[in-house]
Amino acid sequence: MKIIEKQSGVAFHLKKGAFLKVIDLQGEQVSDLVAFNANDKREKLSSGKTLDFESTLFITKGHHLWSNRGQKMMEIWEDTNGRNDFLLAPCSPETFQILYNNPTYHPSCFENLEQNLDAFGIPADDIPTAFNIFMNVQLDPEGTIRVEPPKSKPGDYVLFKACMDLIIGLTACSAEQSNNFKFKPIGYEVNPES
Amino acid sequence: MKIIEKQSGVAFHLKKGAFLKVIDLQGEQVSDLVAFNANDKREKLSSGKTLDFESTLFITKGHHLWSNRGQKMMEIWEDTNGRNDFLLAPCSPETFQILYNNPTYHPSCFENLEQNLDAFGIPADDIPTAFNIFMNVQLDPEGTIRVEPPKSKPGDYVLFKACMDLIIGLTACSAEQSNNFKFKPIGYEVNPES
Repeated sequence: MKIIEKQSGVAFHLKKGAFLKVIDLQGEQVSDLVAFNANDKREKLSSGKTLDFESTLFITKGHHLWSNRGQKMMEIWEDTNGRNDFLLAPCSPETFQILYNNPTYHPSCFENLEQNLDAFGIPADDIPTAFNIFMNVQLDPEGTIRVEPPKSKPGDYVLFKACMDLIIGLTACSAEQSNNFKFKPIGYEVNPES
Repeated sequence: MKIIEKQSGVAFHLKKGAFLKVIDLQGEQVSDLVAFNANDKREKLSSGKTLDFESTLFITKGHHLWSNRGQKMMEIWEDTNGRNDFLLAPCSPETFQILYNNPTYHPSCFENLEQNLDAFGIPADDIPTAFNIFMNVQLDPEGTIRVEPPKSKPGDYVLFKACMDLIIGLTACSAEQSNNFKFKPIGYEVNPES
């Protein structure tokens, strides 16, 4: 197993047919995942297509993650926690300024994705809304969005199967509100290794 | 007032400070809106940033539409209907094949956006999830998404103010499920004209 240290990220290739297991090692941590077609990097994960084609807000086991071109990118094979978010953009420098009134520098998933995806030739403007693994977003009947601590326990995981050759960006989330004010690492395994 | 004929679209410049009024002329029709920074077209509308920064699923009067770079693109000044969607991708050729089991050619908002934005040098892969004006998406407590006929009546409108120089793409929606199986035009006004 590989470790994504707290408030950091990684990027790597995932071959078609390979499995990616993302593990919440200590519980109550969020991991932002983005995906790009390795053979045509302008094709990328799309929250709008996925919510449309799966017809649910809550993407879990049995659902696919779809691309901006309407193609299947990944399938969720297992999900021991069962709660993920696909509404909210990765936390970014502006998130902490605008949403959390924090004017000073703060690490963020967006910066961690940008820095790691740069090595694969993917520019910041192409980073889409991430699939936020373990993120616990609650909605009231009027549509108000609340970010609550994840329900994930130590060892909970989501297992994805790649439907095409992919470049993956993956983080251990940097936002206090997403992980109950305790920054923690994320584990991941790729099988077979690329 | 200008008219977007049924199952078609337009694209145009909207100067910073100008108003765009989008009018449901006959009622029960949806209009998909996308926006790009006219001075740097890689900056574009972001559903994930908007839902995050406004902290609600239901974007209406008083809210802003935000860009992928965390900047305000438009402000909603008036909204006589009050129900819009920012979850679902524009209907596309794949939507009709995958979601509606229609294997034959069908006009779509995505094609109408793509064809009209091409003249502004905006490629299809840069078209984001649209702000779906008048679209009535209902959610049950388990998160299941249902597209219902719009609640908009003839003459209902949404008035936007541009927060930066913009290129706008706008459609009269092509999907039966979005407009109660009656294709209709959309009206729009720009004030002052660019």
